[in-house]
Amino acid sequence: MIEIERKFLVNSEAFKNEAFKKTKIQQGYLNSDKDRSVRIRINEEKAFITVKGPTYNKGIQRFEWEKEIPRKDAEALILLCEDTPIEKIRYEIKSGNHIYEVDEFFNANDGLIVAEIELNAVEENFEKPDWLGKEVTGDPKYYNSELSIHPYKTWKSTNKS
Amino acid sequence: MIEIERKFLVNSEAFKNEAFKKTKIQQGYLNSDKDRSVRIRINEEKAFITVKGPTYNKGIQRFEWEKEIPRKDAEALILLCEDTPIEKIRYEIKSGNHIYEVDEFFNANDGLIVAEIELNAVEENFEKPDWLGKEVTGDPKYYNSELSIHPYKTWKSTNKS
Repeated sequence: MIEIERKFLVNSEAFKNEAFKKTKIQQGYLNSDKDRSVRIRINEEKAFITVKGPTYNKGIQRFEWEKEIPRKDAEALILLCEDTPIEKIRYEIKSGNHIYEVDEFFNANDGLIVAEIELNAVEENFEKPDWLGKEVTGDPKYYNSELSIHPYKTWKSTNKS
Repeated sequence: MIEIERKFLVNSEAFKNEAFKKTKIQQGYLNSDKDRSVRIRINEEKAFITVKGPTYNKGIQRFEWEKEIPRKDAEALILLCEDTPIEKIRYEIKSGNHIYEVDEFFNANDGLIVAEIELNAVEENFEKPDWLGKEVTGDPKYYNSELSIHPYKTWKSTNKS
């Protein structure tokens, strides 16, 4: 139930040519508090409720609990969420023994692209493709829960680095 | 997914002799916002995650979604909750065609006893046992989510009616 993840900005759209899977995702938050976020996610096939706890180890590790739920339940629950649901396309890209999940955001977060990689251990090595940019692991403003209440388009340009 | 419930204070402990079931319950809130509360409940046998939405019709009707989850998951999730979990004993009492659920609270809510009855229709008639007191349906201060952050013992005595 503890996830080890690192998060990066993305320099170019070259990753799109390398993706083996592309999924449209809609998600909202029943709580966007980063110490106890509660997310409802609907993708093309499935729906989930996910709880995340506080991060530690510079944001690399975080408690995460997830359960699949019926799509029609998720559609009712997303209507209760705090703000307009986030919409994004997730691209999955193989890189060595790992998979990068690259999220291209739309609507209020248009222009933001973020890549995540899940590791088996904090010190595990991983390949960095050319399109991978600055690391933003542990920066709360890139949490999807934060993006739901303070979307990318509202950031000052000096913060968009 | 819409529940119809009415809630009452309780005048005496006479209900305890009429109970056919008694269950110890521990519950905490991942969100205590009454428009999107997220509750983790552990009782003697089972555990649940429950989402409740806004009330309407003077508090009688409310969106409710619940899913059973493994007890060990609930034990991890309850540690993320906003405040000290609520502890209570729930007594179930048959009354005509209905069942009253009477909750006796402990710890920070010691002294509070509340009875709830679930109805099939807003206008449905139901029996009122002698121990049933003032109706408090729709009064937010008696929501368990509110009791988790503003417990009964901290209320001024004038509010305890």
